[in-house]
Amino acid sequence: MNPSGAAPDNFRAIDLIRKKRDGQELTGPEINHFIHGYTSGDIPDYQASVWLMAGLLKGFTRAETAALTDAMLRSGEVLDLSDFSAAKVDKHSTGGVGDKTSLVLAPLVAAGGLIVPMISGRGLGHTGGTLDKLESIPGFNVNLPVAKFREVLHRCGCAMIGQTSEIAPADRKLYALRDVTATVESPYLICASIMSKKLAEGIDALVLDVKTGSGAFMKKEEDAAFLAQLMVETGERMGKKVVALITDMDQPLGAAAGNALEVVEVLDVLRGAGPQDLRELCVELAAWMFHLGAVSPDLARGKELSAKLLASGQAMHKFGEMIELQGGDRRILDNSSLLPRAAHTLEVTSAHTGVIKGMNCEALGTATVVLGGGRAKKEDTVDPSVGLTVHKKIGDRVQAGEPLCTIHYNAESLAYRAQKLIAESYQIADTAPPTKPLVRRVISA
Amino acid sequence: MNPSGAAPDNFRAIDLIRKKRDGQELTGPEINHFIHGYTSGDIPDYQASVWLMAGLLKGFTRAETAALTDAMLRSGEVLDLSDFSAAKVDKHSTGGVGDKTSLVLAPLVAAGGLIVPMISGRGLGHTGGTLDKLESIPGFNVNLPVAKFREVLHRCGCAMIGQTSEIAPADRKLYALRDVTATVESPYLICASIMSKKLAEGIDALVLDVKTGSGAFMKKEEDAAFLAQLMVETGERMGKKVVALITDMDQPLGAAAGNALEVVEVLDVLRGAGPQDLRELCVELAAWMFHLGAVSPDLARGKELSAKLLASGQAMHKFGEMIELQGGDRRILDNSSLLPRAAHTLEVTSAHTGVIKGMNCEALGTATVVLGGGRAKKEDTVDPSVGLTVHKKIGDRVQAGEPLCTIHYNAESLAYRAQKLIAESYQIADTAPPTKPLVRRVISA
Repeated sequence: MNPSGAAPDNFRAIDLIRKKRDGQELTGPEINHFIHGYTSGDIPDYQASVWLMAGLLKGFTRAETAALTDAMLRSGEVLDLSDFSAAKVDKHSTGGVGDKTSLVLAPLVAAGGLIVPMISGRGLGHTGGTLDKLESIPGFNVNLPVAKFREVLHRCGCAMIGQTSEIAPADRKLYALRDVTATVESPYLICASIMSKKLAEGIDALVLDVKTGSGAFMKKEEDAAFLAQLMVETGERMGKKVVALITDMDQPLGAAAGNALEVVEVLDVLRGAGPQDLRELCVELAAWMFHLGAVSPDLARGKELSAKLLASGQAMHKFGEMIELQGGDRRILDNSSLLPRAAHTLEVTSAHTGVIKGMNCEALGTATVVLGGGRAKKEDTVDPSVGLTVHKKIGDRVQAGEPLCTIHYNAESLAYRAQKLIAESYQIADTAPPTKPLVRRVISA
Repeated sequence: MNPSGAAPDNFRAIDLIRKKRDGQELTGPEINHFIHGYTSGDIPDYQASVWLMAGLLKGFTRAETAALTDAMLRSGEVLDLSDFSAAKVDKHSTGGVGDKTSLVLAPLVAAGGLIVPMISGRGLGHTGGTLDKLESIPGFNVNLPVAKFREVLHRCGCAMIGQTSEIAPADRKLYALRDVTATVESPYLICASIMSKKLAEGIDALVLDVKTGSGAFMKKEEDAAFLAQLMVETGERMGKKVVALITDMDQPLGAAAGNALEVVEVLDVLRGAGPQDLRELCVELAAWMFHLGAVSPDLARGKELSAKLLASGQAMHKFGEMIELQGGDRRILDNSSLLPRAAHTLEVTSAHTGVIKGMNCEALGTATVVLGGGRAKKEDTVDPSVGLTVHKKIGDRVQAGEPLCTIHYNAESLAYRAQKLIAESYQIADTAPPTKPLVRRVISA
């Protein structure tokens, strides 16, 4: 790689397209030239898009994927957090329904002494987004400038903000192009997009939560594992400690889906309570963060530490500190009625007696979007108060007429549409399905 | 296919890109929508280009290729020549060095009673173009409006013009995009491009001369045969009679390469003389045109007719008529010194005694471009007077010091560059190579 980020001027975009089209490996400087050329506007959309399509269809080698990540990372500012003596560790999830672990993990891991500089995204399609959840807390500001982000990190060890225009601008421009050219679904491009943004945070280590199942982007476990392996190897090539957990998304994580409802559930977990699956995954992910950040010598001791920080109220206290430093109302910690609340509720009841065999988890996410709690298009606004509380999950027994799920809504017509989606998404059988572990696999370098 | 050329409005470009990316077959209306959407500007360059790349890498079915050809054909005017009672027949060559058969065939086949409405292109890269050759005739106008083109056809049975903005505008727009996005080299896209333009001429039958060898675009015979088969089947699906000849381009056709020099050679052939290979190919192609146009019951009688029309001077007379009707100076027929002539000549002599084993035919084409007789870029202007006369061809014996080729030039520095290219392009051996036929294969439906 060329450390200055510059590349010789004699590369021609057309030659690099032809090379990728013909399945040849591009060099680091060639990839650098392409990414910088596109970001600066020298390479037009129509050349960048065909290069992406050729890459999607022909694939990239590990060296190319790392070079792509590196070029995208260096297209903008890379935070220098070397003034913090503690290790900087983050977690990234590929997204799902009811996945609110980030809100637990940032304060929990900061309470354990690590620095968590978390830059997150918004919800789109059937999946929710960390920023939307945080914004359901009155006053919480996710749009901090970098100087203020640093200040919050210095004062409480964690901070949670949205993507800024300084971080990986190449990714923002490329993603917008991929979105309209059917070039989103390449594991190599997904890897470079995620890793360039995360490594721009200036972290030492990263725990990846790669979701698989009916509510995930990658429905098949082997696809999730492929992406996870790619991200772990790319992180490794770039000198970072990275581990990936392949985790279940065949059903929502925890019981709540919808922004304010999920914050209430986060408070439950920080209080040492909350749904067992969510609590278990938070402890597991935190343990890996503690382990990679060298706070715990092994995973078991990381789990013990996590449990202690939750039980002692230190994690909850840290969450309150961060909320206050980011302009939010910390009184929500003791009074969740200060969070937005939907005007009405409606039950979805079971038509049959039996055992929950499965559910269409993506449809449950879509039901939340239908209620106004998510975005069908990027431009949509989100109603923080609406969502679902899931009462029955896979393997649970249910009687005919018993509630499966409660809908929290503000508009009756939308509630009925959501009710139909949810009712259709549950599959009820006579016998229990085989149980699957929440963490399917751990992938490390 | 939708006969109105319109397609339902509910197609989305992104879905059609995704479908092609995933290797699925698109329907006729879907392809129509894409082509019309791009031509009208509704589909942007960055979506059209990725669709082309996906198509290049995944291929198109025969039905898709025909639908693509049809949509491109219908993007502009299709000439209606139904007022001519004789059959309308054309020939198209994929291009090579010294390929001047069009100038012989149009008058020869028109002299036999068929209508030849020939719309041709310019030279680019190492290959020459019919329009450039015609324009070396003083006064010859290749830019006739359609009404005038028709009038020339009515008066002499053949006319030769350049692409007009009314004919297949989708192809012009798509070709410009393919040129800058490495999506030229798809046989399916090449087929649709050629066939849409040729069938827009309103012809009944088409003879394709698909070149293969070191001076052709398709160096390998199997690639040429694949394209030929595709074009024949596409023509068939569109209700036209089409035959393709795979012919040799391992060396220049005839002896002359360069615009005015080639016109002189065309006059020789029309006079019943000229190089044997060129004469033989012209007679063969004309015979196929006569056969497809139902003038000759078989190929043998088509050849006899061609020979008769050359020997009697009727073909030459027709050429004179066409030149005059298109504003050219017909006195060139009897006085080729009226054609532009280079100021100087330079011999390329052989360093060895032996037999010509082969030559790099593309390099000979490039030598002509270097002299100013062709175009490296579309914007270049062409010097009609310069070029080469090849004295030794494959299988010929040569003595050390004997001339291989004469360079006709106006600028000495360019002549030396051309001389080097030519000298290096000849391979001389002790024994003669096996002889290959000029017409390698005939492909018909």
